[in-house]
Amino acid sequence: MLDLPFLPFCTLLGCLGFVCVAFVSAWCQHWRGGFALDGSTRTFNWHPVLMVTGMVVLYGAAALVYRLPAAWSGPKLPWKVLHGALALAAFTLAVLGLAAVFRFHNDHGTPNMYSLHSWLGLVTVLLFSCQVGAVPAPRVPAPRAPRPHPSSPQWLAGFSAFLLPWAPAWLRALYKPVHVFFGSTILMLSGASCVSGINEKLFFSLKNGTTEYKLLPAEAVFANTLGLLILLFAVLVLGALARPSWKRPDADSPDSCQVPAPR
Amino acid sequence: MLDLPFLPFCTLLGCLGFVCVAFVSAWCQHWRGGFALDGSTRTFNWHPVLMVTGMVVLYGAAALVYRLPAAWSGPKLPWKVLHGALALAAFTLAVLGLAAVFRFHNDHGTPNMYSLHSWLGLVTVLLFSCQVGAVPAPRVPAPRAPRPHPSSPQWLAGFSAFLLPWAPAWLRALYKPVHVFFGSTILMLSGASCVSGINEKLFFSLKNGTTEYKLLPAEAVFANTLGLLILLFAVLVLGALARPSWKRPDADSPDSCQVPAPR
Repeated sequence: MLDLPFLPFCTLLGCLGFVCVAFVSAWCQHWRGGFALDGSTRTFNWHPVLMVTGMVVLYGAAALVYRLPAAWSGPKLPWKVLHGALALAAFTLAVLGLAAVFRFHNDHGTPNMYSLHSWLGLVTVLLFSCQVGAVPAPRVPAPRAPRPHPSSPQWLAGFSAFLLPWAPAWLRALYKPVHVFFGSTILMLSGASCVSGINEKLFFSLKNGTTEYKLLPAEAVFANTLGLLILLFAVLVLGALARPSWKRPDADSPDSCQVPAPR
Repeated sequence: MLDLPFLPFCTLLGCLGFVCVAFVSAWCQHWRGGFALDGSTRTFNWHPVLMVTGMVVLYGAAALVYRLPAAWSGPKLPWKVLHGALALAAFTLAVLGLAAVFRFHNDHGTPNMYSLHSWLGLVTVLLFSCQVGAVPAPRVPAPRAPRPHPSSPQWLAGFSAFLLPWAPAWLRALYKPVHVFFGSTILMLSGASCVSGINEKLFFSLKNGTTEYKLLPAEAVFANTLGLLILLFAVLVLGALARPSWKRPDADSPDSCQVPAPR
C-alpha cells in the first residue's frame, strides 16, 4: 500500500470530510430551499446535513483518535475523553437529524419508518446508541474470580465500562474487540444509509415540475458526487483503522490501564 | 468477541447467503412477474438476482477461501484456483446482471447511468474488474534489484500476478495488502449498491396502481428485510476477514510461494 504518513493522510481526510459537509449543506441550501424549523421541507433539510456531519464525519474523526501518533504515549485517558466527546457529538447530531425527519413526516401526515433507507438508518443509530450507551457491567467479579465465558451478558458492558478508569482490565479486554468491530460496522452502515437516502431524496425531488432525475440535471450530478464522496471518506477511515502500522502500539499494555488489573 | 469456531460460522454464513439469493429470487418471481429475456421488466428482474448472487454471496465466498482451516497447510495453489474461480464466477454474474439492466433500459428508452445507485454500482464493478483483471506487471526486476517504491505502477499488477506462480515474491508481497484492502472495500460498496438499488426499485414499483411503499405492503417488508440480510451477510464476511485468529498463518512464508523469492 502507499507509504503515506498518518498526519498528511489525516489532513487529506479532514479536507474530504469538510467537503462532504459543505456539499450536503450546499445541496440543501441551493437546490432544496435552505433550512428552517417550521416542519416544512426546510426542516427536513437538516436531516441529511446532520446525519452526514454526525454519523459520517464526526464519527470517522472519533474512530481515528487513537491513530494519532500523539496518542501513542503518555496517559490514555485524555484521548479516551476526546474519542468519547467526538462520538457523543456525533450521536447528538444523529438524534437531532432523526428528530428533523420525524417532525417533517408528522407535520405532513407521512408515515415514518417504511423505506429500506429508514430501516437501515434506524438500525445504524440503534447500534451506535449501544456503543455510546452507558449500560453498566452487570457484576464485577471478585479478585481471582474465573473469567466469564465471552458469550455471557458482560459483553454488553457498554462504552462507559471501556471509557472509564474503574472498569476492570479483563472486562475492557473482553469488550474492546466488540467495540472495534461494531465501530467499523456502524460506519459502513452509515455510508450505505447515506447513499440510499440521497438516492431516495433525488427520486422524490426530481420529477414532475422540475428536471427529472433520469435527465441528470446539475443537482443530480452534484448529489450523486456527494454520495460517492461520503463512501470514499468511509472507505478511507476504515482503511486507516485496519492498517496495522497505524495502530496504537501496546494498546492493552498495563500502562494504558488507569487502575491495576485484578490479580 | 464470541468464540465461535470458523466452520460453524461458515455454515451459518452459507445459510444466510442462500437465504439472500432465495429472498431476491422470490421477490422477483412472486411480486415482480418472474424472469425472461424479452427486454421487459422480467429481463430487468435478472439484475437484482445476478448482482446479489455474484457481487455479494459468491464474492463473499471467494473472499473467505483462505480462512478455511483446510487451506492453512499444504500447497496454496489449489486454494488460489478456488479463490480465483469463485471470483471469476462472481464477476461473470455481475456482468450478466449489468447486461440485463442495460438491455431493459435500452428497450424502454430509459437513460442508463443517472442514479446514484447506478454510479455506485458501476464504480463497484469497475473496482472488481481491476481485482480480477489480468494487467501484467510492467517489468520484472533482475535478482537483487532494489524493491521498487510502493507508489510505482507495479501495484497495478493485477490478480493474475497474485494468483499465478510465476509472479515474483516481492511483487505479490507488495500487491497483497492492496488486493486485501480493495477486496473488503468492494464488498462494502456492493452492500451499499444493493441497498440503494432495492430502495430505488421499491419506490419505482410500489406507487399508483398498487399499494404504495409508504403503506408498507408485504412486498416492502419482504424486500426491506432482504436489504438488511444482505448487509448482515456483508458485515459478517468483513468481520470474519478482519478476525486475526481466522487468518491463514504464515501466509507469506516461503512455503506458500510456488517459485523461490529472488535473493
